[in-house]
Amino acid sequence: MSVTAAQGFTASGVAAGIKENGNPDLALVVNTGPRLAAAAVFTSNRVKAAPVLWSEQVIKGGQVSAVVLNSGGANACTGPLGFQDTHATAEKVADVLGHSAGEVVVASTGLIGVRLPMDAVLSGVDKAADALSAHGGEKAAIAIKTTDTVHKTAVATSPAGWTVGGMAKGAGMLAPGLATMLVVLTTDADLDAPGLDTALRAATRTTFDRIDSDGCMSTNDMVLLMASGACGVTPDAAEFAEAVRAVCADLARQLIGDAEGASKDIRIEVVGAATEDDAVEVGRSIARNNLLKCAIHGEDPNWGRVLSAIGTTSAAFEPDQLNVAINGVWVCKNGSVGEDRELVDMRYREVRITADLSAGSESAVIWANDLTADYVHENSAYSS
Amino acid sequence: MSVTAAQGFTASGVAAGIKENGNPDLALVVNTGPRLAAAAVFTSNRVKAAPVLWSEQVIKGGQVSAVVLNSGGANACTGPLGFQDTHATAEKVADVLGHSAGEVVVASTGLIGVRLPMDAVLSGVDKAADALSAHGGEKAAIAIKTTDTVHKTAVATSPAGWTVGGMAKGAGMLAPGLATMLVVLTTDADLDAPGLDTALRAATRTTFDRIDSDGCMSTNDMVLLMASGACGVTPDAAEFAEAVRAVCADLARQLIGDAEGASKDIRIEVVGAATEDDAVEVGRSIARNNLLKCAIHGEDPNWGRVLSAIGTTSAAFEPDQLNVAINGVWVCKNGSVGEDRELVDMRYREVRITADLSAGSESAVIWANDLTADYVHENSAYSS
Repeated sequence: MSVTAAQGFTASGVAAGIKENGNPDLALVVNTGPRLAAAAVFTSNRVKAAPVLWSEQVIKGGQVSAVVLNSGGANACTGPLGFQDTHATAEKVADVLGHSAGEVVVASTGLIGVRLPMDAVLSGVDKAADALSAHGGEKAAIAIKTTDTVHKTAVATSPAGWTVGGMAKGAGMLAPGLATMLVVLTTDADLDAPGLDTALRAATRTTFDRIDSDGCMSTNDMVLLMASGACGVTPDAAEFAEAVRAVCADLARQLIGDAEGASKDIRIEVVGAATEDDAVEVGRSIARNNLLKCAIHGEDPNWGRVLSAIGTTSAAFEPDQLNVAINGVWVCKNGSVGEDRELVDMRYREVRITADLSAGSESAVIWANDLTADYVHENSAYSS
Repeated sequence: MSVTAAQGFTASGVAAGIKENGNPDLALVVNTGPRLAAAAVFTSNRVKAAPVLWSEQVIKGGQVSAVVLNSGGANACTGPLGFQDTHATAEKVADVLGHSAGEVVVASTGLIGVRLPMDAVLSGVDKAADALSAHGGEKAAIAIKTTDTVHKTAVATSPAGWTVGGMAKGAGMLAPGLATMLVVLTTDADLDAPGLDTALRAATRTTFDRIDSDGCMSTNDMVLLMASGACGVTPDAAEFAEAVRAVCADLARQLIGDAEGASKDIRIEVVGAATEDDAVEVGRSIARNNLLKCAIHGEDPNWGRVLSAIGTTSAAFEPDQLNVAINGVWVCKNGSVGEDRELVDMRYREVRITADLSAGSESAVIWANDLTADYVHENSAYSS
């Protein structure tokens, strides 16, 4: 499982002392080759953390030998000194592993606007390097948790012999343009950086970019895919892309399932759209509607709030042709009252909303979650 | 005060039996002339309630003799039958008052997707007509409350002799493009419909359009301004516009102050923007950031969440030139750590956030509120 499911990778997770509570907080994933190909996507937030700015440069070379990830601090909005901290971390990893710092991706997550305790980070790199193991994937996944209640891993294996595995963290600030999440995927398939990039972008577009826990976009998001080529097989491009998509979808679903304070996972499917962009715009608008998210929390099939959210978009539709189903019951037909809302059973964690725009044949699925008092409690006390 | 502060208006508020709890739920405001000029702005939500669709047609004539408002039901997403209900309500008011239905504005607020109990509405119109009084403004303001904890009124009087008064309701679903709010303004100044329209649009643009309680846009918003001309004075256009703006600003501030579950009112001022549109876009992005709203609730000066919200906009700025003050303390300078966050005193209800984009000289103020467990409780139980 995790990032060491594929051959050609070692990993570790250690308690470096970055988190005050002594929990694991530093992970290292090393590509032992023979190939060092990599691709990545980053947050589209214009305020980018130092590790994002650094890693964007690294990934341009298409070659990554290692990624070092820390929880306990985002190293975002920390200015030139924060960037120096990221640089020093990459140099330290390069030094310990005998690689070039220009091939070391750095990722951080935690509170924005606070410098990292660099003594802890640098000694933690030594500790993590000592602990590297071909079975270290789980420990790495545990060390990148922040408010996550569980660590998240996934794997897909091809009959052709190659494997795609990965780990993710993230529980809040999940919104399109990615999320407060770090994801590392590894594969032992033999692929070059452009091939990885194509598969990764196709996968994230319909997975991580289509979850929305709270409408908030992070400064630190990163999804990294590294290929070791260790299994010696060059995969069929379509099969590989589907495997990457499946692992991303699995991890994305785990992120929503562990969203801060959530009691419901909401699957929003927009159908009958004129374009896929319309479907995504409508799905996101529904996903971000606080009033609807509260109603779902209260197990109230309040379809009026779905319609009011749709009405704020620029998608093609006529208000009197909108249909909405909640858990399969078409409570809104032709923009008005449909089947009896009492028929909707909302006892279970997963809630399905289907919005039919009656304007075409395109569709999209967005995953979201409800808004709860627990979310408020967790996020009003985070940094204090 | 309220809609009867100006001469030439009578009003009433009664319990018509639309609300199950027996509270006042139907208000009538009548222009007794000599003029019947009027202007209005409506929600920009594309899913519009029946009374909005009706009243948009009425206002095109520039002449309004009365407005009937009900709480206890929004009459939104109720299809052709819901529109017939609105029409029947206007006909009833016209019949009772001896006016034309084409001069009767109808406004509704409450739950979406439920038909109004028309027996109660129509008998309520009789009751309200009987209760009309030149001192009925307060009662009208009380009858339009939904989740409002207080009724909202405001007034401005010119030394030239004319008065602008008004009432408002709204506590949730407040967002630009207006809000779940109904506002009726009256004046005894002698002005025609185009003159009223100019003043009203200028006023709402910088007041009701710049409050945001929860990012949710209503299907029912309406701001109506009626002029009776009863004081016989044609006002100076600029002075009148300022008076309308002042009354709108006062009412808008009251709406935010009574927002559902809120414990903090947040004044977000964006300065140093290249354009006013940039300032508004950034202000709204900050206003809608759930994580920041939770932090403010927890009295946590979490400026990182301000920066992450700014980073999602398309406004002109450089990340390393952003400055943020909370209650006057510049906790973020040049996109990084500024003054000590411990210096920020957040004990009081009003919280001031200043975001300096360092990109020009334009500015805008957006009012918002915090996100609380009480908001979640209130909105997860609203219709059940």
